[in-house]
Amino acid sequence: MITRMSSLFLRTLREDPVDAEVPSHRLLVRAGYVRRVAPGGYSWLPLGLRVLRNIETVVREEMDAIGGQEIQFPALLPREPYEATGRWEAYGPNLFRLKDRKGADYLLGPTHEELFALTVKGEYSSYKDYPVILYQIQTKYRDEARPRAGILRGREFVMKDSYSFDLDDDGLARSYRRHRDAYVRIFDRLGLDYVVVAATSGAMGGSASEEFLAVAGTGEDTYVRSTESGFAANVEAVVTPAPPEQPIEGKPEAQVHHTPNTPTIETLVDFLNGAGLGRTFTAADTLKNVLVKVREPDEKDWRLLAVGVPGDREVDMKRLEAALEPAEVALLEEADFTANPFLVKGYIGPGALAANGVRYLVDPRIVRGTAWVTGADKADHHVVDLVCGRDFTPDGTIEAAEVREGDASPDGRGTLVAARGIEIGHIFQLGRKYTDAFEVDALGPDSKPIRITMGSYGIGVSRLVAAIAEQHHDELGLVWPRAVAPADVHLVVAGKDDTVTEGGERLATQLSERGVQVLLDDRKASPGVKFADAELVGVPTIVVVGRGLTKGVVEVKDRLSGERTEIAVDEAVDHLASLTGR
Amino acid sequence: MITRMSSLFLRTLREDPVDAEVPSHRLLVRAGYVRRVAPGGYSWLPLGLRVLRNIETVVREEMDAIGGQEIQFPALLPREPYEATGRWEAYGPNLFRLKDRKGADYLLGPTHEELFALTVKGEYSSYKDYPVILYQIQTKYRDEARPRAGILRGREFVMKDSYSFDLDDDGLARSYRRHRDAYVRIFDRLGLDYVVVAATSGAMGGSASEEFLAVAGTGEDTYVRSTESGFAANVEAVVTPAPPEQPIEGKPEAQVHHTPNTPTIETLVDFLNGAGLGRTFTAADTLKNVLVKVREPDEKDWRLLAVGVPGDREVDMKRLEAALEPAEVALLEEADFTANPFLVKGYIGPGALAANGVRYLVDPRIVRGTAWVTGADKADHHVVDLVCGRDFTPDGTIEAAEVREGDASPDGRGTLVAARGIEIGHIFQLGRKYTDAFEVDALGPDSKPIRITMGSYGIGVSRLVAAIAEQHHDELGLVWPRAVAPADVHLVVAGKDDTVTEGGERLATQLSERGVQVLLDDRKASPGVKFADAELVGVPTIVVVGRGLTKGVVEVKDRLSGERTEIAVDEAVDHLASLTGR
Repeated sequence: MITRMSSLFLRTLREDPVDAEVPSHRLLVRAGYVRRVAPGGYSWLPLGLRVLRNIETVVREEMDAIGGQEIQFPALLPREPYEATGRWEAYGPNLFRLKDRKGADYLLGPTHEELFALTVKGEYSSYKDYPVILYQIQTKYRDEARPRAGILRGREFVMKDSYSFDLDDDGLARSYRRHRDAYVRIFDRLGLDYVVVAATSGAMGGSASEEFLAVAGTGEDTYVRSTESGFAANVEAVVTPAPPEQPIEGKPEAQVHHTPNTPTIETLVDFLNGAGLGRTFTAADTLKNVLVKVREPDEKDWRLLAVGVPGDREVDMKRLEAALEPAEVALLEEADFTANPFLVKGYIGPGALAANGVRYLVDPRIVRGTAWVTGADKADHHVVDLVCGRDFTPDGTIEAAEVREGDASPDGRGTLVAARGIEIGHIFQLGRKYTDAFEVDALGPDSKPIRITMGSYGIGVSRLVAAIAEQHHDELGLVWPRAVAPADVHLVVAGKDDTVTEGGERLATQLSERGVQVLLDDRKASPGVKFADAELVGVPTIVVVGRGLTKGVVEVKDRLSGERTEIAVDEAVDHLASLTGR
Repeated sequence: MITRMSSLFLRTLREDPVDAEVPSHRLLVRAGYVRRVAPGGYSWLPLGLRVLRNIETVVREEMDAIGGQEIQFPALLPREPYEATGRWEAYGPNLFRLKDRKGADYLLGPTHEELFALTVKGEYSSYKDYPVILYQIQTKYRDEARPRAGILRGREFVMKDSYSFDLDDDGLARSYRRHRDAYVRIFDRLGLDYVVVAATSGAMGGSASEEFLAVAGTGEDTYVRSTESGFAANVEAVVTPAPPEQPIEGKPEAQVHHTPNTPTIETLVDFLNGAGLGRTFTAADTLKNVLVKVREPDEKDWRLLAVGVPGDREVDMKRLEAALEPAEVALLEEADFTANPFLVKGYIGPGALAANGVRYLVDPRIVRGTAWVTGADKADHHVVDLVCGRDFTPDGTIEAAEVREGDASPDGRGTLVAARGIEIGHIFQLGRKYTDAFEVDALGPDSKPIRITMGSYGIGVSRLVAAIAEQHHDELGLVWPRAVAPADVHLVVAGKDDTVTEGGERLATQLSERGVQVLLDDRKASPGVKFADAELVGVPTIVVVGRGLTKGVVEVKDRLSGERTEIAVDEAVDHLASLTGR
């Protein structure tokens, strides 16, 4: 196939788009791959659509290879199934909702768990029918609060979503593993540098869950990795290693101190170190009790929750929310303090919490036998040497303290460093949330119903175009991996005399006959303009047909390395066909 | 490729779906190609999606062959461009409208003229850039009042829409012709029996326009065709041949008659024939004047319009509306008659119309010199021998009278008969409506702007699945043309002993290695169930591997003709590969 730039619907831009925050956005617009139509809405121009389709093909091949069967649902869906699972409400303003001419409620599908579950229920009935993996590659909609970075976070985007349906947890684990392996193959084939991180599940409910993140400083997702092992995890999923318990015997008794003017941990530590207590305190010796309120799903009332963390750490609200999911969490308002006068702001201690029945969860570092400086439930007073398991007993532990670079890796090897990535895939042992909602059962061999268990697996197909571009570009433009490039060879005709133009045409034809996809720059523009566009567009191999032709050679340039080689015209077709794997 | 029915997500149904009105709907559901999700919303199961994709491929190949360049727009679009062209309003309740989280207005795209025009304006500037043809194959949305017949008229559907952009009318005519030729190739390749009919343009505004209709008694579109020539047209587009003018000299004078109790044309004719006027009258001798009101776009007020048709014909409101487009047409209300007392209901004649400045358009049969019986603008009175061009002068002609079987064909050859079809394509010289709205100009060689002219060309891709099924089925099930079939060969393993199952597996593998797509029925079901499913599913070639294997033969059945042939196992692969063109 020959694509002629003289007629291609492509105009490259010299200037960066004003709204471009990240390199992929800047370059995909400048190189004429996408155009903005609305906030979070982009059109795909010819070269962009080719890259998107190439990615779709890789995804489809690997999904088919694990026995996935492709189907396609509407994007415009009735409210009822989403009402039944609570997602009509739970999605909040992220869901595009609309009414039809008869006033019936509809939504634009963000993901299709409901439809897949209902469809399997409709077709299958016997245990012999299972397992099954179904998938679609489809346009999805989410009314993002802040669509950003071009197609990296759009409101209309292409996603591959697949779902596994198994008879039991072992089957689910096998389907999950097959997806994990398929995802590894997909992202490897796409030339991505990525990590697989342990993840929490987001708003979907369920258990085992991993995210695939393309490593990118511009990514929205923060994760941590070990300096020494392969450990990587979402910050929300980091498990704090608990220190060993300590003997209670021999610990000094708890003592209340008058600690005026100590509104912060810092001032408190300074005060303690100046109080002549015979030892040095750090913020890590203090226990900070943060009060929030929590509302369980389907409950009307909020309940108080106290979260105790070492004073050298903040509570990370995202980690706290993830730990309490699916419950809602909110900070206390002034009215809450008024209604609970035992909460002495700045001086809350375990004593008043226990006395008033407030649930108290602590950081895993607060183990039996450790001694803490904490609030004495009285203004300007703290208690020193309050020992866990002797003077107070928390109701349990919670992962709510911030994770910091330098923290020990949960696998015991190395310390954690922070990194950023772009979420490109998510695999998730969803369990029975949706099959319970719709009573998706198989009739077992003993004629008893078996409740089906589901896995849910997503890949952000259109986002991958941007994720790949984030990792594969330089200061001159895009540098596509061969598997997704919009052409195999960018053939620049550098000269206007007949020898050169005819030589270019001939080579393009011969390459095309060998199955090599050629982007032929047959425009009347100057060689300089053509070279610059070739660098910008980012086809991995650039062939220049120019003055060398009189010597019988053409130049082959590797877009990534910049390396140039002169090749005899006679050998060019074989050389390029082999280079491009055609 | 081998698709195993033992694991295929397919359950055929023995019963017709209760809501199925037409064979395609009934069979596509029974054979497990589609499932209903919502009114006018269907999911594509694996076999259905394959047929849809096969059709897309044919459409894409032929669009690429005429130089079309594929792009893709969002389906979720901002209001503004559609506001600018008036379509936000004009589409009425057929448009799905919604608001985003910020309250901004959006719509789900029914067609994308606005976006294509704006995109070309954004990329192109010089006359040298033109012409260009762009297309997309995309999901579209229309809130149909009565979604029906499964995927034949859905509210979410797949359409190929393309647009040509030319510098002048000759260029547009060339682009139109290329599309027309491409459409003929597409529908021929898809094995469709279709007609190309002259069409009016619908709500789009513009000039030359043809529709491609798949011939089907279940179709929603009525058209007429000549009994003797290839003429075919939408009823709205039928042009009435005008009879020759007649000399006015020698015509009797017009005479007003008292015609009591003649509220209908029939009673009037009876009265006249009993009045001793010395000749016989028929309804075709009377002139019926129908009053409507018309409002031009961008005007606030309605204006009266009188339409005169021969009394033996009704006014066809669809033809009248098409003739007056883009103006609105409405019937008169009681208040209109009260406000215009010169309109004597049942007795309206040309006299009062002319005297009161009412615009008067007549059927083309009412030519100069013809004499008519018509209303005398006075209750219970008619005038006889009112001669056109002598006693009244219409303001022009209009195509508003009903078209009837037996009418002369406009091309002068044969008479018209009515037929029904399914609209599968529409090509349309759109002109400058959208380029005017957005000022899409090219800078000409003389540095003066040239307003671009557009063509608009649609194919109902998902509807084609149903249209093909309407034409290709029998009482046992679907009978797909080879170009769109979900597999090349349906291989039925008819028997459970190892020789048969291994023979079936071996043949399937050999065929797959030759590039033949095999749907392998390796289920444990009985041969009878498998045969019935094979007929229902409709793959064009059915191969039965059964007892014949002991004699070294398999049976090859042609699904369309029912013809069965025994083929030596050794020759089966070559035979089937050649039969299926692989």
